[in-house]
Amino acid sequence: MREFELLKHIYEANQGLGGRVSIPPGDDMAMVRLDGTELLAAVDQLVDGRHFCLEGTSLELIGRKAVTRSLSDLAAMGGRPRAALVAVTLPPDFGADRAVRLFDAMRAVAAEFACPLIGGDIAFHHAAGQPLTCAVTVLGEPPSRGPITRGAAESGDDVYVTGELGGAVREDGSGRHLSFEPRVAAATDLVNALGHRLHAMIDLSDGLGRDASHIAEQSGVQIEIDARRLPCTAGVDWRAAVSDGEDYELLFTATGEVPSVLCDGLPVTAIGRVRSRGSQPSPRVLIRMNEEVLSGDELGWQHESE
Amino acid sequence: MREFELLKHIYEANQGLGGRVSIPPGDDMAMVRLDGTELLAAVDQLVDGRHFCLEGTSLELIGRKAVTRSLSDLAAMGGRPRAALVAVTLPPDFGADRAVRLFDAMRAVAAEFACPLIGGDIAFHHAAGQPLTCAVTVLGEPPSRGPITRGAAESGDDVYVTGELGGAVREDGSGRHLSFEPRVAAATDLVNALGHRLHAMIDLSDGLGRDASHIAEQSGVQIEIDARRLPCTAGVDWRAAVSDGEDYELLFTATGEVPSVLCDGLPVTAIGRVRSRGSQPSPRVLIRMNEEVLSGDELGWQHESE
Repeated sequence: MREFELLKHIYEANQGLGGRVSIPPGDDMAMVRLDGTELLAAVDQLVDGRHFCLEGTSLELIGRKAVTRSLSDLAAMGGRPRAALVAVTLPPDFGADRAVRLFDAMRAVAAEFACPLIGGDIAFHHAAGQPLTCAVTVLGEPPSRGPITRGAAESGDDVYVTGELGGAVREDGSGRHLSFEPRVAAATDLVNALGHRLHAMIDLSDGLGRDASHIAEQSGVQIEIDARRLPCTAGVDWRAAVSDGEDYELLFTATGEVPSVLCDGLPVTAIGRVRSRGSQPSPRVLIRMNEEVLSGDELGWQHESE
Repeated sequence: MREFELLKHIYEANQGLGGRVSIPPGDDMAMVRLDGTELLAAVDQLVDGRHFCLEGTSLELIGRKAVTRSLSDLAAMGGRPRAALVAVTLPPDFGADRAVRLFDAMRAVAAEFACPLIGGDIAFHHAAGQPLTCAVTVLGEPPSRGPITRGAAESGDDVYVTGELGGAVREDGSGRHLSFEPRVAAATDLVNALGHRLHAMIDLSDGLGRDASHIAEQSGVQIEIDARRLPCTAGVDWRAAVSDGEDYELLFTATGEVPSVLCDGLPVTAIGRVRSRGSQPSPRVLIRMNEEVLSGDELGWQHESE
């Protein structure tokens, strides 16, 4: 079973969450009602050998990615960062100096996004060769219009993506997936510019095809993508732009005018359209390349767990 | 360097947390101000081979302890549970059925404490023999009188402990440390009964001596404990009651009358006194046994990391 499907299975059994949970697990973040406000929360983790290679990657980039991955989830909800907590398990011979460097990197990137590191736990494995793992919880507040979920795309919406797609992970493990900018400010820009015309949003971690299918599934719609319009990274073709993971750009659906550039010059590209989902069994995501049409549901990347 | 000292070192460098952080890392939980309320948050983790042995311990008890350890931190602040998030890394051959059982156990104990599991992440290690790790973040709201910190003990306070102390971890790894009841309801009872007369509180995870020294250090006082009054677990002597870890009872200081029994019949025992800390170098915690006096600062348990 794959990690995503396992979690889905686990959360489908999730009963009795109580009246305070306004967005249950299954979106980029969950939301819970506190006595005076609503709180967005999500946890994500980096594991050596799965999400990066400790050998050959700087501690600064590992610490950065541990935090920015979770901030990217917050961006997808249009949320404002409030705090982060990290739990790190280290190989027994890791050394205190390197542990401090890793925490310094996490603290620096968290502070850069006004998301102070308010909690931390360190444990050391008992045996050599056991891997560094790093779990980061990010907390935020939703925008005043309410959070942007995966489930609110409407037939007739246009589909947009920020930045460039594809080629974020190089063969040697390096690449943009370590140093990307989580789109927190861009998402706030979008919320301010579009208000309730901004319908559904997700950050691209599993690849455009698969992440678009999450929106389509949770909104009960079909998404058609025009492959010729995809903003491909230089040297990357449209298939890679659809399939490659870890872009950490925003994919969203909206009606009406949408800015073509957000803060810091980040481009926004219209790449497709939301359609109603007929009664016939059909793919949730269609990729159109000239006259050819293919199913995009499975075009993406995910961890096989067994 | 020990884990606790490493974290302390890391957080001493913690600058620029921003105006929203009302309790920085270093207490049982941190507190951050949201737009309409204050939020308590902490993360803690369980690692196979360090905090439990996967072989020989039921998944139900592992899942339970992962959540109750963090709830115990919330009890120590007098907080009300609001939500929990978990990140689990599993050995590659762990199996989906067992993963579901582990999550079910965590969900059940979280629900029991009105603390819905709103976020989860699962990853599988890439190589056999790599250990199960489980990081749990707990979120809560402080009581209306404000959270009970480690830093507010006052000279003249009496010192109290709930329940029984010592012997929580048996030699074979079993024992009360897996099945204990986090004192969330008892803490709320204390807050309601004592209000602002309840000064400082901590949950006993490292052992009475060491945890009392955390209160003494952060409050700038000395704590004197009368060993004859300690409520020792049957078959355990006062030295074990002072030194053994993982009791997960509450240690607190207060003035005036204190109930001798809390909800569910939990006993409260007066065990000592808070004294002003003179200008002479002296232990933060004194253990008095008849005419003998010894320093309790280092009587406790913690992980040696290297």
